[in-house]
Amino acid sequence: MDQAEVRRLLQEVAEGRSSVDDALLRLRMAPFTDLGFATLDDHRGVRQGVAEVIYGAGKTVDQITRIASAMWERGQRTILVTRIGPETAEAIGAALPVEYSELGRIAVVGEGPKADGSGTVVVVTAGTSDQSVAEEAAVTAEALGNQVTRVYDVGVSGLHRLLAHTEEIMRAEVVIAIAGMEGALASVVGGLADCPVIAVPTSVGYGASFGGVAALLTMLNSCASGVSVVNIDNGFGAGYLASMINHRRSGS
Amino acid sequence: MDQAEVRRLLQEVAEGRSSVDDALLRLRMAPFTDLGFATLDDHRGVRQGVAEVIYGAGKTVDQITRIASAMWERGQRTILVTRIGPETAEAIGAALPVEYSELGRIAVVGEGPKADGSGTVVVVTAGTSDQSVAEEAAVTAEALGNQVTRVYDVGVSGLHRLLAHTEEIMRAEVVIAIAGMEGALASVVGGLADCPVIAVPTSVGYGASFGGVAALLTMLNSCASGVSVVNIDNGFGAGYLASMINHRRSGS
Amino acid sequence: MDQAEVRRLLQEVAEGRSSVDDALLRLRMAPFTDLGFATLDDHRGVRQGVAEVIYGAGKTVDQITRIASAMWERGQRTILVTRIGPETAEAIGAALPVEYSELGRIAVVGEGPKADGSGTVVVVTAGTSDQSVAEEAAVTAEALGNQVTRVYDVGVSGLHRLLAHTEEIMRAEVVIAIAGMEGALASVVGGLADCPVIAVPTSVGYGASFGGVAALLTMLNSCASGVSVVNIDNGFGAGYLASMINHRRSGS
Amino acid sequence: MDQAEVRRLLQEVAEGRSSVDDALLRLRMAPFTDLGFATLDDHRGVRQGVAEVIYGAGKTVDQITRIASAMWERGQRTILVTRIGPETAEAIGAALPVEYSELGRIAVVGEGPKADGSGTVVVVTAGTSDQSVAEEAAVTAEALGNQVTRVYDVGVSGLHRLLAHTEEIMRAEVVIAIAGMEGALASVVGGLADCPVIAVPTSVGYGASFGGVAALLTMLNSCASGVSVVNIDNGFGAGYLASMINHRRSGS
Amino acid sequence: MDQAEVRRLLQEVAEGRSSVDDALLRLRMAPFTDLGFATLDDHRGVRQGVAEVIYGAGKTVDQITRIASAMWERGQRTILVTRIGPETAEAIGAALPVEYSELGRIAVVGEGPKADGSGTVVVVTAGTSDQSVAEEAAVTAEALGNQVTRVYDVGVSGLHRLLAHTEEIMRAEVVIAIAGMEGALASVVGGLADCPVIAVPTSVGYGASFGGVAALLTMLNSCASGVSVVNIDNGFGAGYLASMINHRRSGS
Amino acid sequence: MDQAEVRRLLQEVAEGRSSVDDALLRLRMAPFTDLGFATLDDHRGVRQGVAEVIYGAGKTVDQITRIASAMWERGQRTILVTRIGPETAEAIGAALPVEYSELGRIAVVGEGPKADGSGTVVVVTAGTSDQSVAEEAAVTAEALGNQVTRVYDVGVSGLHRLLAHTEEIMRAEVVIAIAGMEGALASVVGGLADCPVIAVPTSVGYGASFGGVAALLTMLNSCASGVSVVNIDNGFGAGYLASMINHRRSGS
Amino acid sequence: MDQAEVRRLLQEVAEGRSSVDDALLRLRMAPFTDLGFATLDDHRGVRQGVAEVIYGAGKTVDQITRIASAMWERGQRTILVTRIGPETAEAIGAALPVEYSELGRIAVVGEGPKADGSGTVVVVTAGTSDQSVAEEAAVTAEALGNQVTRVYDVGVSGLHRLLAHTEEIMRAEVVIAIAGMEGALASVVGGLADCPVIAVPTSVGYGASFGGVAALLTMLNSCASGVSVVNIDNGFGAGYLASMINHRRSGS
Amino acid sequence: MDQAEVRRLLQEVAEGRSSVDDALLRLRMAPFTDLGFATLDDHRGVRQGVAEVIYGAGKTVDQITRIASAMWERGQRTILVTRIGPETAEAIGAALPVEYSELGRIAVVGEGPKADGSGTVVVVTAGTSDQSVAEEAAVTAEALGNQVTRVYDVGVSGLHRLLAHTEEIMRAEVVIAIAGMEGALASVVGGLADCPVIAVPTSVGYGASFGGVAALLTMLNSCASGVSVVNIDNGFGAGYLASMINHRRSGS
Repeated sequence: MDQAEVRRLLQEVAEGRSSVDDALLRLRMAPFTDLGFATLDDHRGVRQGVAEVIYGAGKTVDQITRIASAMWERGQRTILVTRIGPETAEAIGAALPVEYSELGRIAVVGEGPKADGSGTVVVVTAGTSDQSVAEEAAVTAEALGNQVTRVYDVGVSGLHRLLAHTEEIMRAEVVIAIAGMEGALASVVGGLADCPVIAVPTSVGYGASFGGVAALLTMLNSCASGVSVVNIDNGFGAGYLASMINHRRSGS
Repeated sequence: MDQAEVRRLLQEVAEGRSSVDDALLRLRMAPFTDLGFATLDDHRGVRQGVAEVIYGAGKTVDQITRIASAMWERGQRTILVTRIGPETAEAIGAALPVEYSELGRIAVVGEGPKADGSGTVVVVTAGTSDQSVAEEAAVTAEALGNQVTRVYDVGVSGLHRLLAHTEEIMRAEVVIAIAGMEGALASVVGGLADCPVIAVPTSVGYGASFGGVAALLTMLNSCASGVSVVNIDNGFGAGYLASMINHRRSGS
Repeated sequence: MDQAEVRRLLQEVAEGRSSVDDALLRLRMAPFTDLGFATLDDHRGVRQGVAEVIYGAGKTVDQITRIASAMWERGQRTILVTRIGPETAEAIGAALPVEYSELGRIAVVGEGPKADGSGTVVVVTAGTSDQSVAEEAAVTAEALGNQVTRVYDVGVSGLHRLLAHTEEIMRAEVVIAIAGMEGALASVVGGLADCPVIAVPTSVGYGASFGGVAALLTMLNSCASGVSVVNIDNGFGAGYLASMINHRRSGS
Repeated sequence: MDQAEVRRLLQEVAEGRSSVDDALLRLRMAPFTDLGFATLDDHRGVRQGVAEVIYGAGKTVDQITRIASAMWERGQRTILVTRIGPETAEAIGAALPVEYSELGRIAVVGEGPKADGSGTVVVVTAGTSDQSVAEEAAVTAEALGNQVTRVYDVGVSGLHRLLAHTEEIMRAEVVIAIAGMEGALASVVGGLADCPVIAVPTSVGYGASFGGVAALLTMLNSCASGVSVVNIDNGFGAGYLASMINHRRSGS
Repeated sequence: MDQAEVRRLLQEVAEGRSSVDDALLRLRMAPFTDLGFATLDDHRGVRQGVAEVIYGAGKTVDQITRIASAMWERGQRTILVTRIGPETAEAIGAALPVEYSELGRIAVVGEGPKADGSGTVVVVTAGTSDQSVAEEAAVTAEALGNQVTRVYDVGVSGLHRLLAHTEEIMRAEVVIAIAGMEGALASVVGGLADCPVIAVPTSVGYGASFGGVAALLTMLNSCASGVSVVNIDNGFGAGYLASMINHRRSGS
Repeated sequence: MDQAEVRRLLQEVAEGRSSVDDALLRLRMAPFTDLGFATLDDHRGVRQGVAEVIYGAGKTVDQITRIASAMWERGQRTILVTRIGPETAEAIGAALPVEYSELGRIAVVGEGPKADGSGTVVVVTAGTSDQSVAEEAAVTAEALGNQVTRVYDVGVSGLHRLLAHTEEIMRAEVVIAIAGMEGALASVVGGLADCPVIAVPTSVGYGASFGGVAALLTMLNSCASGVSVVNIDNGFGAGYLASMINHRRSGS
Repeated sequence: MDQAEVRRLLQEVAEGRSSVDDALLRLRMAPFTDLGFATLDDHRGVRQGVAEVIYGAGKTVDQITRIASAMWERGQRTILVTRIGPETAEAIGAALPVEYSELGRIAVVGEGPKADGSGTVVVVTAGTSDQSVAEEAAVTAEALGNQVTRVYDVGVSGLHRLLAHTEEIMRAEVVIAIAGMEGALASVVGGLADCPVIAVPTSVGYGASFGGVAALLTMLNSCASGVSVVNIDNGFGAGYLASMINHRRSGS
Repeated sequence: MDQAEVRRLLQEVAEGRSSVDDALLRLRMAPFTDLGFATLDDHRGVRQGVAEVIYGAGKTVDQITRIASAMWERGQRTILVTRIGPETAEAIGAALPVEYSELGRIAVVGEGPKADGSGTVVVVTAGTSDQSVAEEAAVTAEALGNQVTRVYDVGVSGLHRLLAHTEEIMRAEVVIAIAGMEGALASVVGGLADCPVIAVPTSVGYGASFGGVAALLTMLNSCASGVSVVNIDNGFGAGYLASMINHRRSGS
């Protein structure tokens, strides 16, 4: 509500066309309306790219299948479905074309878009057990139109394996560094890379790893610049953010 | 500018006693008038009652004095200033009538409103050291137009002292239960009272009290129904909420 | 025991009608007797309203059925049974009229009372997964005689969905804000509402949500005034407290 | 090793009856020998009373049965077996007379001793769900020769139920106060009792009770004097300590 | 006013040596006489023994001095003042006979009572820095009529030093085991002792000792039977409880 | 010595304008030239942009002044100095041109570069007390060649203030969301923004804010996509990462 | 890359034999190449001894069997397989000679090497339930060529049992001290031993042992010199490190 | 008095060069000679080497000076004094030859012993601020007879700096890896080194480093074999343990 509108409202009151109570209510509610929210989509939408996302956790097979079908009927040609088991993927596959990653527990309905980001998203993991989270991140990034390079199982306790990939890391547009246990990978990668590093702690580990807290703290305390952190096991969030960074803004 | 004032202003406009331009100017002079939402004050506004609030922590003596004076000049006749030292109270007192509670580190500028709530707000504390938080709560409630009964130093390890006040607690409209250390007071009071109990953990204690965490957990886990909790040492928040509960809504 | 009684006791001792030992014992036990506890019900009772409550967790199907039947036979016509599965609801239903909410794991035996509170209790949730706790709160409030408005799945990351309900929130007598993960809903709702907000953190989430601790801390630290917090997943407690606030006291 | 012995040792060296190496070794090991450890029994034994204890957790049914039989054959006539299921109790019962408390998951082999302590051990619990821990404590104390009074389900949110037992608590020789959730019972009982209070937090609760941590902190921070705390759910430890306090020392 | 005094007073009334009015006045002069519960002192009263206690923390020098003087005038001949600095002790000493322990920050006003407990209270500490808490415990126990043996600086990393005191520990009526850092002392002492062991964690330490939490957890998890724990640095609580255990009940 | 300079130096060598010996010497004078990795600066180097950074915390005024002077003499024309007090800024200013932000405790030596990023970095704060961290972020971003828009004091409890800036947030290339207490700002901004959001928890708050932990958890659990988190109070890290995202890669 | 190489590179540039871009890339990648990493083995290898290790957790029976067979075919004659169940051991045993410890969940394929360390590795445990971790440590050390002495079930609450082994501990080359619950064993052993003590906290315990955290903190805070700690339940790590210490370096 | 001295003394007795009385007296003058265990020094004794240690924290300048002088008079020629300020070092220096490291807050009285360990102790730190702990470790190791190589300020975010020291690390007999913040150094060093790595977390950092906890967890979770951890900031403990490992046992 800008000045002109407030003036108009006051005029209505002055002319008796609006009651005091009505005007009071409209003044109170003013700041929360007319802000052009039509541009905001329904659910944490994937506004920039070509895919829509269904967050599968806590939804039934039936719910997911129906949402996916509805999207497909509306003309959506790439749909990402996260955190689902093979039975859900199969159910979707009965009606729609679907590709499922059992490791990442993530499916892409329809054809993936072509990679149109500025550069490459490099997904680096410390150990074999981090690959589930890594696949969630990688498939998410691919479904959002990014070229993805996977560099798996290069934990810092065998540094030479990581260093063998120095060039890929140095040439990345954005790196996703995924590690459980001590999570030191993010710092080392952050020191090598010349681009934003998204660190993903995983719940892999035992004892004092506390379900990913140790890795989380390590990553938050990283001395390397350009490192930021997402929630434990949040592969989707990392892939999504990486895609955001890798895509030029439409308006700029 | 509170709701009543906006309503009055609109009435003046409706009755032709105030011009549209004048009204617009007065609305703009209130904070955020460009948003047309004059009822929201500077900081987490006191929309319901008669007082405005200045949160003193982290503000200089000079800043507070100037804000208070500006409010006073705009016609505000009860101003609550929280978390300030005596020197700030003195500085305000040089220009405005002020009453300062050293214990609660809280001041009321101007005359307190008359108590117009449904009933009585009873403030109960476990120990002598909880009185600082208690005074913040009590003075806040009084400044917002509530009758307050103070029942101090009635911790549960000397149960008879608390039980001597059974009647006051049973007749309260809302009880604020304040305790550090083990915080058991909230549960016992919650068992006695027939009304909402706002529990305030305090940072009083040593060792495994962890700066109020022990009391906080105790209160969150209370088996007594009708108990809810605010942040550690948040006397103001408890007093404010108590006043909300004790005042009938304008519209109902 | 007031002065007069002590004097009478001393007189009995002086006159030999009471032994020293008897008097000593009566002096020691004095403060814990004669306090009119008959007004306190058996178990954290629902003193204000029409319903009685059976807390189902940890009780067998048989125990619950027998308690409910006994209450019914005593003439109680609204009985709330919390935290039970469908098999318990069915068992009760064999003998008594019962309505069961599978989502909220809560049942109402008999007919619900008519809503006689001052206004409306608005239950707001951030995500779909918070609805179980929300239903526990909503059904509790309804069974205690409140009109309840449900505003579900309006998390702050899609702000426009919440803002679409601004008017309902502004007109509420009390709001119950339920959220897991980051729990930011309580603060935003607290900023919109003009009435007490009861925040309920839920254990929904993963990683660094720590089973509801993240949401709990967010809610305790809310900068919005009028917000207080109950235990994680404590929908019953929130519904009960909301009803307390929404009902005028008999004596006032 | 006292001075005389060291002198004797040196003399042996001087006289060539002991080699330098031998003497060195004996000097190094000296403080750890000859301390009369024969008086210390095999396993954290129950030295004061009549019962021996088998800690059942982590032992197989077969192991426990064999240990119990061996003790019985050595003439032991009261054997306490803690943390076992009914199948273990049954297995023992095939050969030996046994009484099993399913609630407390504890068994007494043979006949219980007669109660020979100074006074009564009072076991107080806050809620129904704390009874399992309470029975472990009570049966332990009984098996060690104590008269036990059970005061169950008297949580502080229904204070009158606890106060109805004021006299029993005031006449106790030692009180065991058992509570989960907010654990406030220990403080209130500590304020009533005139004797040592052993507080036992239980893992009963949900949300911010954190498996007994909330109750533990409450109890450690108790303002009531004479209260000390044992580990979460440690009913055996409390019963054992209570028996120690309730029995006069042989030497005094 | 302790139980014995109330009994004496009642006896005087019974024997006609005191008038009812006089008795009533004297009961009222005691704290909470309106409750007729004179045996409870000002703060968490010392009902069993001969001393009264002033908890000094958070009280001004002037407040403490006045409370002590008032107690003295009422005839109290042993007064314990905890957690005070030398300047407070000096201020008290200006008017009353006082003995101050700078190490324990605790003072005894008047003459200490003669030790009348069943046996000896042994206070054991792990390191030099734990002596402050130890003195608080020891002086408290002495002021409450116990014979105290101090065994200081016998931490478990130099086991022979502790073992040199095996006999004292084995003959104790109750042991207070005080340790910071890893707190292992309580377990070892608990294994040696045949009597209740009160473990006191201290905030001595650095790094992962977390202000006493490490020692607290160690002590709570002690495998030795007969060990219970009080709050971090709570020397007074340990000394008080030790005295309770060491004194026979009046009525038994 | 940044990449551009090394390239220039190599070009000079290629074109014969610089001798091999000269080039070698200049490479050696740069840090770690024996490693041939001149692009890495002294500490967590700023490889991409025009500024070099001195991390001031834990360095003496003298150390900082000498490092800055040495950089200046080597030809560096923009030097960022973080976490310093005014006295350090003054000391640097005695010899070099310096602009100091007292609020952000950060200084820029020399002239700031012109903003050459893709778009605008928007720095949003919840409260007045978060401005110190915000200025560290904003000045860092500016010194690295970014246009910065400051949107301060728009916490979610007064939502209209934030919504008034919807357009700026929607048009940002990257948003830095800074908040203490409950940290809900990041989620709400993440829901409004169409670009990466870097969340910075601050240590502002009291009670259960635990020095920034509450805000940190809130931010990690944000349901809004595109949100990542840096360490508590790490304004520099956020500004640096924002600049990375806002600048196109040289090679792409 | 040493100075000579940089000079040679510059010369190539000067002579046009290398492009500027090539030179720049080689300078950037220099420090990460040519460091002789060929000496580093594939996976955190067991470089010193005779055995290779397969970390079994998270690997399928089939994967493990194939890895073991491949190693065997390459001529490896001692292979350690950790964290596997009996079915995996059986599967390996179908093709290769294998010895499996069910307690330690660890297998040795082929014949164990002869013990060639400097002295003896003594493995000490507090309780029966710690033996699983102990066997993992002991079998690991044996497979790496160490003589191992097992001293089990000698917790500090029955000190005499531990002291009975004083000589073995004093003569050890390295001691592994394994304990759950309060973990005090490490300190006491550290006080007795004259050699490095590797402390292993175990997740054995209940209540406030928090899955090994209590023991971990105890061990980290040990006052005994020469004690260091590995992760909770990390028997393999302790056995491996013990072997390292017990073996003389080849080059020294 | 170390083992060698006791052996020499016994030899003198055996050879008649010392009388039994003389020997007895000298044994008694050593600490705890009444226990005949002269090899244990005052506090957590240095049994293996040539130096004795005074732990300075919590001791007065005067106490330390007197202990050092007494040791010196008894013939001790290398005395290590930890955690002292320059004024204490000066006070000692007035009477005895002393070398003080202000950085490490540690002093060596007398001449340092010659390095007689098997190999070299390499002390590696991540950042400049870790040097204080590093010097405590390094000076401790030197005073106990070890050759020490310092590799400082080689944190993993600038990996090339660490890699430049690969050879030193690979040739070490034992490595002490010291780091605050994220503590990743230990893992990387553990991957490079072929010898035991003692990890020391430091309290350097801010925000979510929690005074060293983040680094501690990182180090405990290290995937590199051969890594163990000591308490936060415990440089002395690391240096002492390193010396133990680097010295062959006398008896083997």
